[in-house]
Amino acid sequence: MTAEQFHAIGIQSYDKEPVPKAFTYTPQQQRPYDVDIEIEACGICGSDMHAIKGNWGKHYLPLAVGHEIIGKVVKVGSAVQRFKLGDRVGVGAQCDSCGSCHRCDHHKPNNCRKQVGTYQGVYPETGVTTQGGYADYVRVNEKFAFKIPDNLESNIAAPLLCGGITGFKPLLTAGVKKGTRVGVVGIGGIGHMTILFAKAMGAEVTAISRNDSKKAIAEKLGVDHYISTSEEGYAEKYADSLDVIVNTGNSFSENGVSGVASLMDAGGQFIFITAPPVTEKIELAPFFLLMNSYSIAGSVIGSPSEIEYMLQFAADHQIKPWVETIDINEENVKTAWERMEKGDVKFRFVLTGYDKYFKKD
Amino acid sequence: MTAEQFHAIGIQSYDKEPVPKAFTYTPQQQRPYDVDIEIEACGICGSDMHAIKGNWGKHYLPLAVGHEIIGKVVKVGSAVQRFKLGDRVGVGAQCDSCGSCHRCDHHKPNNCRKQVGTYQGVYPETGVTTQGGYADYVRVNEKFAFKIPDNLESNIAAPLLCGGITGFKPLLTAGVKKGTRVGVVGIGGIGHMTILFAKAMGAEVTAISRNDSKKAIAEKLGVDHYISTSEEGYAEKYADSLDVIVNTGNSFSENGVSGVASLMDAGGQFIFITAPPVTEKIELAPFFLLMNSYSIAGSVIGSPSEIEYMLQFAADHQIKPWVETIDINEENVKTAWERMEKGDVKFRFVLTGYDKYFKKD
Repeated sequence: MTAEQFHAIGIQSYDKEPVPKAFTYTPQQQRPYDVDIEIEACGICGSDMHAIKGNWGKHYLPLAVGHEIIGKVVKVGSAVQRFKLGDRVGVGAQCDSCGSCHRCDHHKPNNCRKQVGTYQGVYPETGVTTQGGYADYVRVNEKFAFKIPDNLESNIAAPLLCGGITGFKPLLTAGVKKGTRVGVVGIGGIGHMTILFAKAMGAEVTAISRNDSKKAIAEKLGVDHYISTSEEGYAEKYADSLDVIVNTGNSFSENGVSGVASLMDAGGQFIFITAPPVTEKIELAPFFLLMNSYSIAGSVIGSPSEIEYMLQFAADHQIKPWVETIDINEENVKTAWERMEKGDVKFRFVLTGYDKYFKKD
Repeated sequence: MTAEQFHAIGIQSYDKEPVPKAFTYTPQQQRPYDVDIEIEACGICGSDMHAIKGNWGKHYLPLAVGHEIIGKVVKVGSAVQRFKLGDRVGVGAQCDSCGSCHRCDHHKPNNCRKQVGTYQGVYPETGVTTQGGYADYVRVNEKFAFKIPDNLESNIAAPLLCGGITGFKPLLTAGVKKGTRVGVVGIGGIGHMTILFAKAMGAEVTAISRNDSKKAIAEKLGVDHYISTSEEGYAEKYADSLDVIVNTGNSFSENGVSGVASLMDAGGQFIFITAPPVTEKIELAPFFLLMNSYSIAGSVIGSPSEIEYMLQFAADHQIKPWVETIDINEENVKTAWERMEKGDVKFRFVLTGYDKYFKKD
């Protein structure tokens, strides 16, 4: 049974050291095409950290984050077609879109201008705000729920819903195939999944990091090459060695787009998938892009059909994100956030133990 | 006969109002794979204006510009394979490349880091500087000379060698085909050729300009739609209406990349093909590229095989750049430059009458 009040853990104020606290909220009234999902696992995404620190703007409070959700369908609206009670499904960063704009009509609802985020989202019709997966239930438009293939464990599948598709989609955009030389900047949550996907596509994969501290672990992930940008003369030494770079790093100023991008062969595509704080800009010299025929692109999650394809690809190739599970409760969420801040997780926390914490009626 | 001294018209100093003057120069010593070309026509490219004003750096003097050259082969080195005396050929913005780097080895010599410009270029081995097509002869590596199809008139073909390929290449990069929605910013020398090529590929073409003053002429060029960026609310009105934008404008600040780019559908590609003065940067908000999955790319001329393909495409589809011919001499060059500065040409000056001015021995 779904209560009309959902229980969640989130922030009550924007603090430098965010404090997770329990609260209850009233979800958007159920529409005919909505499904309610009883949550059993939720990944802790880098976006969660940006959101609770207000990096992407300070919106409503309280705020429960979490958009790498796995759970069971426990309620279906009268018009729901794709799911029945008991189905195991996932929900990513998006829970709704307008459904009628050009982009929605053309299989790009992830770029809909009126899309609703699974958290930090607002339904345009009602003004109701959304709460994420650090909660007992979530209610979403069935279009943005996805059947999880049977051979993917819930804890493993959770991070695929946001981090996984976020790293997978640029590889699709760039047409990565056997032999494509793919560089991945940032060996973290999204970066390590990008490496796993790119390897499974047959790419020649280079991990790029600020120093050698992640070399051993990158090799465990199966990379073919490793570049430390603190190595003197790295740009000249590895010039023309990449066709595509997926930048999973948070900051543009720190990484220096131009330095890393200059590793690309002519015509190379540099695709970034996460945003630094809103005040930060990308500044580029036109001649740099011109003379190398480079492109710089942004990429945001993926469309529903791309998410389904990614999940099946992960199941077929047994893509297994590295996860550390941690039972959901206020104290553990605080610990996980603190360790996230220090980069002390390889590579993804997944909240579990929902049954224990959210005592169901 | 090729004299060992070539005669040219160029600048003797970098002035606000550049003054063309006759001079002679000693070309690079002929190598076995060089051809000498007796020039009969040369387009006046926007790059010529940037170069003589020092916008892209102040290099050697005197400097003869011009890199849309048509002429006859009058001398071939012992190793030349593709040409014989009397062949009608064209030369574009590039006259040499290193021939041994990764990019040269992979059919991208237009992105070679040691490439030599047809003018404002320096041969790395000898330090000899290059002079362009406002001259009686030009000597180039045969790799960068191209047979002109018989049914293309010289005056019509000249602008294709730089402006034509520069507008054609982004259409290739973006995979433009029947039905692709292509926007062309700037209805000038390169812009009008881009429109002609895109239409011939079957694209739905939109001309984009700052006001309505070019609407009638854009319609004559065959565009399907016209957008004036001074129309209030244009960005919302025409949102999602383009798949690709080729920006042929000179300035990034004036056009406002973000305003125009926002006309693109999700996943749109914004490709620019010329550089503003070296001090100008592109500044972009990462979220803008992210949420729309946009890419911003530079593109520089094309590879030799792409230039050959473009010339054949132009011949097959009877692509005819709009040209105004003007006999080469100091006075006429000055007049042409002055009118270029005012945008008073539709759309390309082509210098002709070489026989009359350069009295051959």
